Amino acid sequence: MRISAYRCEHFNAAHRLHNPAWDDDTNRAVFGLCNNPNYHGHNYELEVKVSGEIDPDTGYLIDLKLLSDLIKSEILLPFDHKNLNLDVPEFSQLNPTAENIAVVIWQKLRTQLPDHYDLSVRLYETPRNFVEYSGG
Amino acid sequence: MRISAYRCEHFNAAHRLHNPAWDDDTNRAVFGLCNNPNYHGHNYELEVKVSGEIDPDTGYLIDLKLLSDLIKSEILLPFDHKNLNLDVPEFSQLNPTAENIAVVIWQKLRTQLPDHYDLSVRLYETPRNFVEYSGG
Amino acid sequence: MRISAYRCEHFNAAHRLHNPAWDDDTNRAVFGLCNNPNYHGHNYELEVKVSGEIDPDTGYLIDLKLLSDLIKSEILLPFDHKNLNLDVPEFSQLNPTAENIAVVIWQKLRTQLPDHYDLSVRLYETPRNFVEYSGG
Amino acid sequence: MRISAYRCEHFNAAHRLHNPAWDDDTNRAVFGLCNNPNYHGHNYELEVKVSGEIDPDTGYLIDLKLLSDLIKSEILLPFDHKNLNLDVPEFSQLNPTAENIAVVIWQKLRTQLPDHYDLSVRLYETPRNFVEYSGG
Amino acid sequence: MRISAYRCEHFNAAHRLHNPAWDDDTNRAVFGLCNNPNYHGHNYELEVKVSGEIDPDTGYLIDLKLLSDLIKSEILLPFDHKNLNLDVPEFSQLNPTAENIAVVIWQKLRTQLPDHYDLSVRLYETPRNFVEYSGG
Amino acid sequence: MRISAYRCEHFNAAHRLHNPAWDDDTNRAVFGLCNNPNYHGHNYELEVKVSGEIDPDTGYLIDLKLLSDLIKSEILLPFDHKNLNLDVPEFSQLNPTAENIAVVIWQKLRTQLPDHYDLSVRLYETPRNFVEYSGG
Repeated sequence: MRISAYRCEHFNAAHRLHNPAWDDDTNRAVFGLCNNPNYHGHNYELEVKVSGEIDPDTGYLIDLKLLSDLIKSEILLPFDHKNLNLDVPEFSQLNPTAENIAVVIWQKLRTQLPDHYDLSVRLYETPRNFVEYSGG
Repeated sequence: MRISAYRCEHFNAAHRLHNPAWDDDTNRAVFGLCNNPNYHGHNYELEVKVSGEIDPDTGYLIDLKLLSDLIKSEILLPFDHKNLNLDVPEFSQLNPTAENIAVVIWQKLRTQLPDHYDLSVRLYETPRNFVEYSGG
Repeated sequence: MRISAYRCEHFNAAHRLHNPAWDDDTNRAVFGLCNNPNYHGHNYELEVKVSGEIDPDTGYLIDLKLLSDLIKSEILLPFDHKNLNLDVPEFSQLNPTAENIAVVIWQKLRTQLPDHYDLSVRLYETPRNFVEYSGG
Repeated sequence: MRISAYRCEHFNAAHRLHNPAWDDDTNRAVFGLCNNPNYHGHNYELEVKVSGEIDPDTGYLIDLKLLSDLIKSEILLPFDHKNLNLDVPEFSQLNPTAENIAVVIWQKLRTQLPDHYDLSVRLYETPRNFVEYSGG
Repeated sequence: MRISAYRCEHFNAAHRLHNPAWDDDTNRAVFGLCNNPNYHGHNYELEVKVSGEIDPDTGYLIDLKLLSDLIKSEILLPFDHKNLNLDVPEFSQLNPTAENIAVVIWQKLRTQLPDHYDLSVRLYETPRNFVEYSGG
Repeated sequence: MRISAYRCEHFNAAHRLHNPAWDDDTNRAVFGLCNNPNYHGHNYELEVKVSGEIDPDTGYLIDLKLLSDLIKSEILLPFDHKNLNLDVPEFSQLNPTAENIAVVIWQKLRTQLPDHYDLSVRLYETPRNFVEYSGG
């Protein structure tokens, strides 16, 4: 009885896309408006997918309340209403693109989730731009 | 030309999460508000995915009108505006978690769908909590 | 500077539509599937609109965090994961149609909201069926 | 034949809520996480409502393509991918709450829209927090 | 107890915007891509708002099932999967802009709805372009 | 660091489902309202998924602005506000079902996308009917 369960959460954050190894013109050419030195921001929608076997005692794959609490403590607390570049240590040297944010979220949740679950995260930067990372 | 086609339907139902093998305190501790003996309810959104080959005569994988009719007769008729615990025989002994409801829906549709189609179901209990089951 | 601010919340509840002054056939004829004696349920989406003047010190009409807290204590705590007919005293004698639920919500919030604010509530029973009540 | 037509656009921006007349503790107490000195951000959804008479020659109230162009030049160009506090002159002395942003947007569009149209703007800061301003 | 109730329905139709009193260049200049002589199309979302007093016997303003049936017979049957210009008599001489479609829908529903109800219709041509008509 | 990135775009088009090898009665029996000789139409929502490795210099899998430009030039320019049967050469002999439209879109994008990216497209004909094609 292999199944997947999903929990969605959201956070609001500022960020700036920038590669410090490049000069300003290259950064502006590659990242466009996203390179604004004063930052811009998004309502990030996060969809966390956990896969595994249904527990016959509960009928749950995982208690989504506990998954929600995990996302809150590991991701929302450090990311929500923050400046990803300045306030979140993982992005002090890593460009906070949607791709890199999704990888960081996956890594942070992976270390807290029991090994018998598979994990995938989807991150919406806008309703029309989003990414998905499943490890590997 | 392997493709997937999806049809979404919805039903409104009451349910209660409860394991009769446990005492009341354990049930409340595990299922929380969902253990309310008087039931609560949801607008369930059901997304049915069928996969296979495009029919060159019609350009269809499957006539989604026929898939919709199948979902209506097999799922909506017995589930919609019902109490899943009391009115739906499949849940007389099975806890109606989103996971178990999705498995029951998959099994009911699988027996009616021609073998050359693959089948997967996604069930939204709320916009932020949902599950996906593909058999096996 | 008259403006309106909105805060959305949701709750999941079971209910049954029934008029005890009528016989069973009349109830079934009028309320159809909604008359199921075992109840059914919904994800209710609640949109609360408050109107008034912007406070020049804060730039807020009302702190939406405080409005959210008020909705939680007055509405979600007594309604969420409940059976409206059995668990909510306001509906022990009042049929819990979307219209009547909206009126009850409005009355409960109105008594807690300072008089200088106008109030309106919109209640979605499903994405396609909803009501709006502004008092009076 | 009085009718209303709506056009929706969006922009992504960073902001910080802060009253420079208050000390830091008061700002944090009133604005909470929104007072983060490093800013946070949102996907703002803007819904512009124009009301008036249908033009019998076109069957339009207003050409929504022209309304969209007006919103782009007046609002999206100066606001999108910007820091509202630092990059937008209207908020150099005005706290960029959703309420104040909506008022500024209304004022900027009002000066460009012919007088025979009525104007109202709705601004979503998140899907669950939004404001509406119609002048006056 | 004055309240409003809403019912949403949808239809899919082709249309072309064109003023036969103008030459082709003017039509193309005014209506742009919407003037394509081979037509284009939309998923129209229709939101019907009815206002009045709650019936104390039912707790309903109006039975939304009956309102849905009325919309189906008056609007969906003649409009759905049709070419508005060619298949719908009301648009044989009237340009099927969203504004004019909304007015026609309002007029058709108004004649069928009891006088003690107020009526308003909102028509989405796309999620970002929509109109609202309340008569008068 | 294998990841997927998604970009959503939309187009509005008219179409008719019809198999010229069949007589009119068969076409009507198979395609129902979709066989209307005067066409009907849809707001098509297109979700393009690209998979591959994150570029360590940009933190991007692919610049979604460039992907958006590619979709615009290859798909929206020829499809938007068009009659798929009459205006789009790919459907002069091919029935424009959602399945076939998705295959054509995939093929057109595949020839323009660098080989090291995998590609999948999802096409919504309505919010409740959609298809997905990943090649092969």
